[in-house]
Amino acid sequence: MNTATLLISCPDQKGLVATISNFLYTHGANILHADQHQDNDVGMFFMRVEWDLDGFELAEEALRDQFAPIAERFQMRWRLHYSAVKPKMAIFVSRYLHCLADLLYRHQIGELACAIPLIVSNHEDARALAEFHGVEFRHMPVNAATKGEVEREQVALLKERGVDVVILARYMQVLASSFVEAFEGRIINVHHSFLPAFSGARPYQAAFQRGVKLIGATSHYVTEVLDDGPIIEQDVVRISHRDQVSDLVQKGRDLERIVLSRAVKWHLEHRILRYANKTVVFD
Amino acid sequence: MNTATLLISCPDQKGLVATISNFLYTHGANILHADQHQDNDVGMFFMRVEWDLDGFELAEEALRDQFAPIAERFQMRWRLHYSAVKPKMAIFVSRYLHCLADLLYRHQIGELACAIPLIVSNHEDARALAEFHGVEFRHMPVNAATKGEVEREQVALLKERGVDVVILARYMQVLASSFVEAFEGRIINVHHSFLPAFSGARPYQAAFQRGVKLIGATSHYVTEVLDDGPIIEQDVVRISHRDQVSDLVQKGRDLERIVLSRAVKWHLEHRILRYANKTVVFD
Amino acid sequence: MNTATLLISCPDQKGLVATISNFLYTHGANILHADQHQDNDVGMFFMRVEWDLDGFELAEEALRDQFAPIAERFQMRWRLHYSAVKPKMAIFVSRYLHCLADLLYRHQIGELACAIPLIVSNHEDARALAEFHGVEFRHMPVNAATKGEVEREQVALLKERGVDVVILARYMQVLASSFVEAFEGRIINVHHSFLPAFSGARPYQAAFQRGVKLIGATSHYVTEVLDDGPIIEQDVVRISHRDQVSDLVQKGRDLERIVLSRAVKWHLEHRILRYANKTVVFD
Amino acid sequence: MNTATLLISCPDQKGLVATISNFLYTHGANILHADQHQDNDVGMFFMRVEWDLDGFELAEEALRDQFAPIAERFQMRWRLHYSAVKPKMAIFVSRYLHCLADLLYRHQIGELACAIPLIVSNHEDARALAEFHGVEFRHMPVNAATKGEVEREQVALLKERGVDVVILARYMQVLASSFVEAFEGRIINVHHSFLPAFSGARPYQAAFQRGVKLIGATSHYVTEVLDDGPIIEQDVVRISHRDQVSDLVQKGRDLERIVLSRAVKWHLEHRILRYANKTVVFD
Repeated sequence: MNTATLLISCPDQKGLVATISNFLYTHGANILHADQHQDNDVGMFFMRVEWDLDGFELAEEALRDQFAPIAERFQMRWRLHYSAVKPKMAIFVSRYLHCLADLLYRHQIGELACAIPLIVSNHEDARALAEFHGVEFRHMPVNAATKGEVEREQVALLKERGVDVVILARYMQVLASSFVEAFEGRIINVHHSFLPAFSGARPYQAAFQRGVKLIGATSHYVTEVLDDGPIIEQDVVRISHRDQVSDLVQKGRDLERIVLSRAVKWHLEHRILRYANKTVVFD
Repeated sequence: MNTATLLISCPDQKGLVATISNFLYTHGANILHADQHQDNDVGMFFMRVEWDLDGFELAEEALRDQFAPIAERFQMRWRLHYSAVKPKMAIFVSRYLHCLADLLYRHQIGELACAIPLIVSNHEDARALAEFHGVEFRHMPVNAATKGEVEREQVALLKERGVDVVILARYMQVLASSFVEAFEGRIINVHHSFLPAFSGARPYQAAFQRGVKLIGATSHYVTEVLDDGPIIEQDVVRISHRDQVSDLVQKGRDLERIVLSRAVKWHLEHRILRYANKTVVFD
Repeated sequence: MNTATLLISCPDQKGLVATISNFLYTHGANILHADQHQDNDVGMFFMRVEWDLDGFELAEEALRDQFAPIAERFQMRWRLHYSAVKPKMAIFVSRYLHCLADLLYRHQIGELACAIPLIVSNHEDARALAEFHGVEFRHMPVNAATKGEVEREQVALLKERGVDVVILARYMQVLASSFVEAFEGRIINVHHSFLPAFSGARPYQAAFQRGVKLIGATSHYVTEVLDDGPIIEQDVVRISHRDQVSDLVQKGRDLERIVLSRAVKWHLEHRILRYANKTVVFD
Repeated sequence: MNTATLLISCPDQKGLVATISNFLYTHGANILHADQHQDNDVGMFFMRVEWDLDGFELAEEALRDQFAPIAERFQMRWRLHYSAVKPKMAIFVSRYLHCLADLLYRHQIGELACAIPLIVSNHEDARALAEFHGVEFRHMPVNAATKGEVEREQVALLKERGVDVVILARYMQVLASSFVEAFEGRIINVHHSFLPAFSGARPYQAAFQRGVKLIGATSHYVTEVLDDGPIIEQDVVRISHRDQVSDLVQKGRDLERIVLSRAVKWHLEHRILRYANKTVVFD
């Protein structure tokens, strides 16, 4: 089924839903899913609506033209996505391959609605896995002296390939702000702690030292401040005094895979709206 | 804030959201929460919309009159609730008082939007707790010979007090179908297992015998078939080989309280729609 | 059944279990539960063993005398508890009563193996609940000028009543180090966040601001550093963008009750050993 | 580190721990982990003890000879495992490859202490994955007429390869009792429901029909009764009215992988004892 999805955020006011739903109804939309949210504290309105294109009378350009005045009237920020247009996703990885292997497998069986044209790594470890899945692998080693130059090459490469979203699947390099800006709101990272606890390096060791009884993982959009971007998903697993750091690492791998893959899936299905360094995730 | 809530279920078709939201907008509704769901398999549409009555121009009667033709056109089943009208809730209990104590405490601190005019029990154990919370307590013992007569008295008493919803908070009697019919869709039970596993008597013993690794609890609407009504909420807790039946009973108490209180809260907030022996729970 | 429980921590070495189990066996102990843990990193050994006193040939004094040389040989820190001796627990509370109400109810139905001789509060709110449960209530208001003096009175009162353990059930005062020292290792607090995230004041507001997808609660032993003591138990619950701060507060209440009551129960059952600012909790 | 692990179950009686720990201590064992459990209802004792072989003075044969009289005296059922001897694990799979892919990846990164000499399938789908991981793949199609003959070949093949444990990783054939008997207590299956709910075919459809609010998965030892063997591990995930059967299938895949891999790991680490159609799982 070919569908279109409209994502809207704007100041809340009366008549928003009526206006949007009238517009879609008038043009023959058969709505499949609609969800909305008002944050009454900050006076914001958020909506996601997905409809069947079969029987819908507006092509993309006409839709954009005719919706623009409505959007302007309500000061909307809005995005329109067509299910027929698969986003292109690049995956960055270092030496821990569990998240990469998981994403590739999910893609293979159809869980992730995207193309994966490229895997980038500062190590060679992921090459065999990339080749098994038929994805181009680029080994781009980084050191303190070359980091700026390599990142410029990476951004150029991503743009050349038309990449829409970048997944940091345990990529152990902090991206410079120029990279982050080039893909603002389109870089997703997984951090191996329950943020904001244990941000930064070696979170499992820190969790072990503190003696917590649950460990967590967090997927979030990358911003210029390390581990501080809008959180998309988190989950935890119980540990006990019997668990050493190596047990935490192992239990954490399962968390990381699940927490990252949910974020990727929701992003690809255009379920996420960002505001105030937070996310609205429509289910 | 005074609000109205409209709950709708009907065959899905184009124009539903547009029509409903136009109707509300036209009469000045400031929508606070709206949620909807389509079950594309069975072709059904479900909606819950809550709006601020401040600035809304229709009084209840006018609203009912003017919405009726819309409802008829779309073959809607619909209910309208005003937050100013608190539902009246009766609680039935036997000798285990943890769910009763929990509901009374939640009511006391304002978690449950209802009045509690009555506690009914086939034992005396709950009397002190009822009195501490200033709720009328009725001791109505039951045996095989008197059960039919006592249930008729109970239904009469509930109707006399204008009770809207009946909570079976570990009430260890199976209600006859005449009682169930009298409060159809308005009796909530908690069963101390993860239904449909271990329905019927002594579920903790059965779970222990089977050697499960998680135990659960289920809140559901009561129908004429025991433990078979639409499920509202379920939760589980991990157990291990170290747990004996008495440990299961103890861990289960926490589950039962949480699972029942969520169901009660959602019912009182008019968040639940029933269809096909299932529930839609709008969050 | 009357039982004794021995809790041991010492440097790990060969022969520990053999020596301890021989000692108990020689004197006729029927062991009911035994659990042990080695932290191979720090080279420490921990053990909890509980046995039936029926048929055990040593009275308490003889047991202490005869076990002392073994303890000395292995440099053990050890504690001995008899189930017949119920610990005395005082509860401190301010204006939020959900944890207090929960602990009193659990005590009433036999979940907590202790006596509760005293409830202390800086407000009057808890008086009715204390009286309903027949527990002495002491209203001891605190302000900046009187805090030191009031705490001295509180310590004196606790000692006079022979209190063994102090529970801070949402007591909104930071205890001075003199108080903490007087009950070192015997004060349990509940903090309404997933520590170490959101320590200090207003954690639900902080969690809301950060946009986390799970909120937590933590029970821990109180040390001189605020919210930094050894963690006993933690749990979390999922939230979404729909949850406002008031929803977090409400969902958090259920977490706090469960996380605190587990810690209290385990402490009273002598299941917890502390080391390196962490806890070993034997299940 | 080379270790030995002893697993014991026997009628409970005084002196068991003293005798076992003395035996090990006398021969120089440095105990790394020890755990025990008494089921006081049925009067059974269970123990798992693992020790460092460095400094231990008995070789395997001598150990078996000298421990045998102790075992006889206490009517023990016991097993002895050496970490240096890796179990051989065969994986059976049909067309859903998520559990297979997961187990192979975990094996590759060292999570699973075993060799995987063989993958057997009634379909060709798994061949590429098997080859990527360098594991022999045997396509053994089955139909009603050939099933008995094929199973005999499978048992013969497994024995020829010295296979110790067989994992049914979504293998969609019910094994005959002759197969089950040949590997009694050494066949692990994953069932895609929270057993005992929804045993048998199409559990996700059944869960959807019943309207449960959580779905589960269960790993268990295979016995002659379908889906009735001793449960090793279970877990659940929350669903809502928004989830269709296809969503349940997708969410369930993550559960199945985790629940099966934990069972496999624990089995390979000799943490599981079976009794009374249940399991003791030492952590």
